[in-house]
Amino acid sequence: MKLWGDRFGKESSEEAFQFSASLPFDRRLWKHDIRGSVAHAGMLGKCGIIPQAEAEQIIAGLKQIETDIQTALDRNEDPFDPQSEDIHTEIERKLTEKIGEVAGRLHTARSRNDQVALDLRLYLRDACDEIGKSLIRLQEALIAQAESHLKTETILPGYTHRQHAQPVLLSHHLLAYFWKFQRDRDRVCDCRRRINVSPLGAAALAGTSYPIDPALTAAELEFPCAFDNSMDAVSDRDFAVEFLAVAATCMSHLSSLAGELVLWSSAEFGFVILDDAWCTGSSIMPQKRNPDIAELVNGKAGRVLGHLVGLVSLLKGLPLTYNRDLQEDKEAVFDSHNTLCGSLGVMAGMLQNAAFQSGQMLEAVKASPFLAATEVADYLAKKRVPFRQAHSLTAKIVRSCEEKKKSLADLSLEEWKKFSPLFDADIEELLEVGAVVKAKASPGGTAPQEVTKAIMKAKQVMQAPREG
Amino acid sequence: MKLWGDRFGKESSEEAFQFSASLPFDRRLWKHDIRGSVAHAGMLGKCGIIPQAEAEQIIAGLKQIETDIQTALDRNEDPFDPQSEDIHTEIERKLTEKIGEVAGRLHTARSRNDQVALDLRLYLRDACDEIGKSLIRLQEALIAQAESHLKTETILPGYTHRQHAQPVLLSHHLLAYFWKFQRDRDRVCDCRRRINVSPLGAAALAGTSYPIDPALTAAELEFPCAFDNSMDAVSDRDFAVEFLAVAATCMSHLSSLAGELVLWSSAEFGFVILDDAWCTGSSIMPQKRNPDIAELVNGKAGRVLGHLVGLVSLLKGLPLTYNRDLQEDKEAVFDSHNTLCGSLGVMAGMLQNAAFQSGQMLEAVKASPFLAATEVADYLAKKRVPFRQAHSLTAKIVRSCEEKKKSLADLSLEEWKKFSPLFDADIEELLEVGAVVKAKASPGGTAPQEVTKAIMKAKQVMQAPREG
Amino acid sequence: MKLWGDRFGKESSEEAFQFSASLPFDRRLWKHDIRGSVAHAGMLGKCGIIPQAEAEQIIAGLKQIETDIQTALDRNEDPFDPQSEDIHTEIERKLTEKIGEVAGRLHTARSRNDQVALDLRLYLRDACDEIGKSLIRLQEALIAQAESHLKTETILPGYTHRQHAQPVLLSHHLLAYFWKFQRDRDRVCDCRRRINVSPLGAAALAGTSYPIDPALTAAELEFPCAFDNSMDAVSDRDFAVEFLAVAATCMSHLSSLAGELVLWSSAEFGFVILDDAWCTGSSIMPQKRNPDIAELVNGKAGRVLGHLVGLVSLLKGLPLTYNRDLQEDKEAVFDSHNTLCGSLGVMAGMLQNAAFQSGQMLEAVKASPFLAATEVADYLAKKRVPFRQAHSLTAKIVRSCEEKKKSLADLSLEEWKKFSPLFDADIEELLEVGAVVKAKASPGGTAPQEVTKAIMKAKQVMQAPREG
Amino acid sequence: MKLWGDRFGKESSEEAFQFSASLPFDRRLWKHDIRGSVAHAGMLGKCGIIPQAEAEQIIAGLKQIETDIQTALDRNEDPFDPQSEDIHTEIERKLTEKIGEVAGRLHTARSRNDQVALDLRLYLRDACDEIGKSLIRLQEALIAQAESHLKTETILPGYTHRQHAQPVLLSHHLLAYFWKFQRDRDRVCDCRRRINVSPLGAAALAGTSYPIDPALTAAELEFPCAFDNSMDAVSDRDFAVEFLAVAATCMSHLSSLAGELVLWSSAEFGFVILDDAWCTGSSIMPQKRNPDIAELVNGKAGRVLGHLVGLVSLLKGLPLTYNRDLQEDKEAVFDSHNTLCGSLGVMAGMLQNAAFQSGQMLEAVKASPFLAATEVADYLAKKRVPFRQAHSLTAKIVRSCEEKKKSLADLSLEEWKKFSPLFDADIEELLEVGAVVKAKASPGGTAPQEVTKAIMKAKQVMQAPREG
Repeated sequence: MKLWGDRFGKESSEEAFQFSASLPFDRRLWKHDIRGSVAHAGMLGKCGIIPQAEAEQIIAGLKQIETDIQTALDRNEDPFDPQSEDIHTEIERKLTEKIGEVAGRLHTARSRNDQVALDLRLYLRDACDEIGKSLIRLQEALIAQAESHLKTETILPGYTHRQHAQPVLLSHHLLAYFWKFQRDRDRVCDCRRRINVSPLGAAALAGTSYPIDPALTAAELEFPCAFDNSMDAVSDRDFAVEFLAVAATCMSHLSSLAGELVLWSSAEFGFVILDDAWCTGSSIMPQKRNPDIAELVNGKAGRVLGHLVGLVSLLKGLPLTYNRDLQEDKEAVFDSHNTLCGSLGVMAGMLQNAAFQSGQMLEAVKASPFLAATEVADYLAKKRVPFRQAHSLTAKIVRSCEEKKKSLADLSLEEWKKFSPLFDADIEELLEVGAVVKAKASPGGTAPQEVTKAIMKAKQVMQAPREG
Repeated sequence: MKLWGDRFGKESSEEAFQFSASLPFDRRLWKHDIRGSVAHAGMLGKCGIIPQAEAEQIIAGLKQIETDIQTALDRNEDPFDPQSEDIHTEIERKLTEKIGEVAGRLHTARSRNDQVALDLRLYLRDACDEIGKSLIRLQEALIAQAESHLKTETILPGYTHRQHAQPVLLSHHLLAYFWKFQRDRDRVCDCRRRINVSPLGAAALAGTSYPIDPALTAAELEFPCAFDNSMDAVSDRDFAVEFLAVAATCMSHLSSLAGELVLWSSAEFGFVILDDAWCTGSSIMPQKRNPDIAELVNGKAGRVLGHLVGLVSLLKGLPLTYNRDLQEDKEAVFDSHNTLCGSLGVMAGMLQNAAFQSGQMLEAVKASPFLAATEVADYLAKKRVPFRQAHSLTAKIVRSCEEKKKSLADLSLEEWKKFSPLFDADIEELLEVGAVVKAKASPGGTAPQEVTKAIMKAKQVMQAPREG
Repeated sequence: MKLWGDRFGKESSEEAFQFSASLPFDRRLWKHDIRGSVAHAGMLGKCGIIPQAEAEQIIAGLKQIETDIQTALDRNEDPFDPQSEDIHTEIERKLTEKIGEVAGRLHTARSRNDQVALDLRLYLRDACDEIGKSLIRLQEALIAQAESHLKTETILPGYTHRQHAQPVLLSHHLLAYFWKFQRDRDRVCDCRRRINVSPLGAAALAGTSYPIDPALTAAELEFPCAFDNSMDAVSDRDFAVEFLAVAATCMSHLSSLAGELVLWSSAEFGFVILDDAWCTGSSIMPQKRNPDIAELVNGKAGRVLGHLVGLVSLLKGLPLTYNRDLQEDKEAVFDSHNTLCGSLGVMAGMLQNAAFQSGQMLEAVKASPFLAATEVADYLAKKRVPFRQAHSLTAKIVRSCEEKKKSLADLSLEEWKKFSPLFDADIEELLEVGAVVKAKASPGGTAPQEVTKAIMKAKQVMQAPREG
Repeated sequence: MKLWGDRFGKESSEEAFQFSASLPFDRRLWKHDIRGSVAHAGMLGKCGIIPQAEAEQIIAGLKQIETDIQTALDRNEDPFDPQSEDIHTEIERKLTEKIGEVAGRLHTARSRNDQVALDLRLYLRDACDEIGKSLIRLQEALIAQAESHLKTETILPGYTHRQHAQPVLLSHHLLAYFWKFQRDRDRVCDCRRRINVSPLGAAALAGTSYPIDPALTAAELEFPCAFDNSMDAVSDRDFAVEFLAVAATCMSHLSSLAGELVLWSSAEFGFVILDDAWCTGSSIMPQKRNPDIAELVNGKAGRVLGHLVGLVSLLKGLPLTYNRDLQEDKEAVFDSHNTLCGSLGVMAGMLQNAAFQSGQMLEAVKASPFLAATEVADYLAKKRVPFRQAHSLTAKIVRSCEEKKKSLADLSLEEWKKFSPLFDADIEELLEVGAVVKAKASPGGTAPQEVTKAIMKAKQVMQAPREG
């Protein structure tokens, strides 16, 4: 079914219809479409554009349709007619079936151009809220593990260049992700603010000659404001680009965390045991416990980036106003929303149930011969050796140890003194793992008291409502 | 159902299962999976790894399953159990159901790692063949239009920088696309050659201790050869990247052609009328005939590029051998295949039914005041004026005409001679549209006799089998 | 020169040095690097980590170096030693040259990891400000043209699907872009807010054992706050991703506007004449005036998208904290900044000097036979015909006109009445172009009084300072 | 300087000139531009289009210019005038300077449209050859290490899902990459074949009225053939897309190898020590030896993907024929070429000098408790237990061992027999590491004799000339 068939001398080619029909995916907008139509019909009635009674009839019809569709879906039945080219057509068809000719008044002063923009914005607004909640769930999982491992002061090697650098608290490491996801939440808020503008009333592209009230429908649909320019309203998809960019950024954070869990669950690291419920096995190798879920999250980061690329390159060079190319925005948005929420969910679940292996981590720290080398350089610098020279001398000490297959901890005071008379007995306790960590007490550093403060701040920040 | 459940102390989390199950999309591989298993079972029997009778039992079971699934699909029933995590598991489950415990021998000397690589290669080989056919259909449509418009010598303005440049034959313009699609076919062939290597027998990653014969299964499955290195065989997805790159390139060609059809069907150009069966209308503006199908093809070019990006960034930095991230290759490949074949199909259909408006085109050529300017410069250069000076003088003639709001054709011989005494009476006939086109008789140029040759060559090339 | 040479037994391979040296591009950060070092040295002095006198000596040295470099650059001389591996090393080398051994104290309690993050944030903060200004310049050009064409009520066909849809004011069309760029400004602000956090004091990854005061350096460098977590601070590049996403979005807006200018300057449209100073010619076709600048803007949109893809895929799966992969962030950021500012600048210049051809536009509107079709449907709907039927009837009228090669304006009242008795004499004035535009007086519509309001609002919004 | 200035009423805006000038990057094409012009002038002479003597004069001039430029470059002087808008203009300017007015004949029957396409193809043909050589150097490094470690039968854990899977020979692991790069070489060949078509003679877009001989210039420039369609010839950039796709694929292979070297050089793995000459240190942590070169290769894979995206999205929807957007192809191509060759070079150097730690690898294998689990399942399956049951039983054995913190090797025969009476004394020797590897003797598997064959085949394949 099409809303424009009388214009044409013949039927669409079946091949063209199959190629262009969007019902297979935009059916997902059915609730938003009905909600928008209810608001529109209400406004048409209130503004006297159609009789109030007819508006009410339309609204009642739409609400009945909503119930019908939900019922069908709950029964696993397909409520939609595949002959409709899109969800807008399908809902109007159902309405005509239900209330007859008066249904034909619903599309007064409206076009599918503003209608689909509205549906997409309603959808994305909900998606933002859902993503916000999923982010909070993941942040809570991070804080819970961070708190638990702060109590035990679990220490692991901190890495730069994937090489041992300096020892850090596991809690500090996990909280680094907390802040990344906090910025993601911030971005979701900013994005939602730009989504949250009603395009209804732009009509096809130029506004309409009916005395409509876009502010009324905006308010009814909980938008703080309506569009400023009708041609912009129907052509704008930058909010969808922003949504995908925010999603891709968050997926990149998730992929880093997932990548570390995969690495840490390797035989070589052994820093974490993922719960059986979040692993899978092999069809041929009976011993395998594979971190598939984390691997998939990593893989799926590429997918969302792909959707972003698809949409931006679709929009490149596109003239005003509505062009059918824009139909391609929806699958990218839907799939990215699914992928992001799914990934946030499984990562939260996996983290909550992950058993970080503090013993293995400490062993790695202790076996690491030069993890305290920065402390040695700082020790010298604090004794007035310019840092650059202190660094240079320490590098020589490290090389000498390497040649003798010793760690810094193996050096005797005498040996230290051979390198520099500035070394005293206190050098030894300085190199003790716990001492190294405690010493990093600068604001935002890894010392336990700093991490304690950080957890408090994280909790506060997470609860603070942000004005959007 | 999982093939590895006994390894674990507890069930998968439902959230993890939903997130990671691939049956919703890899069901598309069911035929290829069965075909591969039939070949594998046959080889196991022939090599004496399992008894011949059991091999036959397995093969018979698989063939029965193939019939069952096809029957169910034909009846619009879902043949698959959503509790299976992937299509491989599901087929093995069905086999067990059908032939009992002996089904458990099928997975001997095989892993899902080589199995899924095999299925994907079988799928893509078919996809290449289908794309090849779709390309031919489109090329035929181009040639048919080119031939038809060569008879009438339909001339339109040739463009550079989207500005009138020199008049060309419509046939010449259309054939430019023929050659682009010919290169696409060439690329599909090259890609198919690299797809066409059997990975079966690589097992999990290292080969197997069974005396298997990968060459036998390769031959059975019509692969000219098998893998060289088992670890490469299960990790390699570069053939899928190549497939997506080839698809994205072809889509970019399609989007250029589609973009021109959109432009040409605008009121301003009026160079083509697309058939009603390939257009759509508007829900609000009763007059609209929109080139939606062409617009969608343009939009979908971004989609395939997105899939390519997704896969390449998935593979970036991935260590050997099989990693679950790779599961994400399939949807990108399936959707790109669909999108490309769909787009090729509708473009062929649209072109076949497009009514190019030779009258409108000729009018545009005639209204274009300076389309023959290059001829003027060449005219002078042929009289021994260095081309750079000839160009410069012609530019001045053009500016002078512009100021007087004249076209080149409006100049009298006297006026010509004022610019240069080298101009003679023959300048006038030189500027006649048909003469300009005929003059471009250099090889591969737009003169009718060259285009005639080009159509002959195009037909030859299209039929020539290429050795893949 | 390297800051870590004493660690190693031998020199870098020349090939490796060339491959990894970043001085060829990060030299662009020299001012920001010096500014950061000045703040750091000041803090070291104030906190008593190094003697105040030495801090002052370092600061004086750095300021002298700043002057030296600027002088050399002004003279077109290269101030940098290509043997330094990066700009940080080079500045420290120069400092040592200038003030001797005390220079070695500057790097106390700092790492290149927090240093480079700082430099990049300082750079991007400036870049955001510059982009903001360039956006304003472009918005002003749009408003100026919109105001000027509002006076003359220049009307052109509004397009959907690149097809004539409804007549609109040129001012309305141009203002649609104003709002797109306004959202871009909004995004730049949001992005700047997230850039505007000091990472200095995170040191290598874990903080430091020196009693540093990150809030002090933050304040000195005009950051409203410092980092919360040291491991996040040195690994975070999401602000750079956001910058590139914002830039890519803005480029997509620019490419749409550029694409329209290219189209409109074609012979077929003739809606705009770009000034000679913003066009180029052809080396062979003397008549050509090509809209190269607009074409390049369109082409460059792809470039910035490419940079975004490069950075996101670089970050995918990257573990904490600093990894050398991150060096690849800079060229993407620098080039995108250049490209965006350059494109904004030329588009503003081109627009200011563009001669929109109101005569040609009006002609296109008048020649368009069915541009008022929506009005006809609305006319009927206002007489109580359900819109869907009104649309259907109007479609039939259009088809009938097409067959008779008439426009709506050609129909006599008698003919109208044959289609429906509801048509009265007022239908004729309704179809007059100016009337159609005036009728679209709904909020945000194209009627002159609405556009007048819109320009006022645009001016207000542009001046309103946004709290960042 | 411009080749078209006389067309215009005024000068270019400086801002527009800076924005659009390509000399800053297309100067890289100077040799190819001269080579193409020499061939073109020769053809003009031979075909009698310009006098032979003038052709010779032009050629001599061009050759002198080539020498001049080379001399200047060798002296580190800039040979180019920044006022020229592109390299074509600059070379023609120099020629005019050198031989006077006759230089103006060079551009007869040619346009910058076919000229730039020619230059780019000549450049890319060279680039393909250079990449081919760099690939061979890397393959040789892989083979050398593979041969050396085959002698010692160095064994390491083979991984799937980044988890220990089955033991493999290091040689086998390295050769997996050999085959990936072999396919890359194959792709480079295919791509070169499509690059290797001369576009010279297409002129602006339509061919020319001069009696040129494109086959002659093609032969002179060592192209096996010339273009078929002039409009295709000047618009085609799919060869550049293919080049970038091939480069991105090769970079993805390099990034995997680089990623493994980074991982293997971590403290946890310790599988390789990279030579000091290929590592760098830290400005703050004196002990660090960072695998920066490998990290950068990983990071740069994103960069090349970005260039690919930029070009494909540039081409999307671009109409025939030459559009200035195309200027953006060059930087993407140049930088990708640099990046790929640089990366291949450093990876070869790094590999040649890498010290793989066979002791550490063997230790990892031995410490891995269940690496031989597949052998156990196969053992049972060979005794006629259906593989699926054998797998299931082995999984239970593994779980039981895990609970008792035992490895498979720790089980006594008695314990084995408790699980199944099918286990005999031979199970023990089966589990020995070397035996497991030797057992994987299927074609393409990891057994030493298979790897020996593979090295022979690799050497053969590498030397076999491929017909391009």
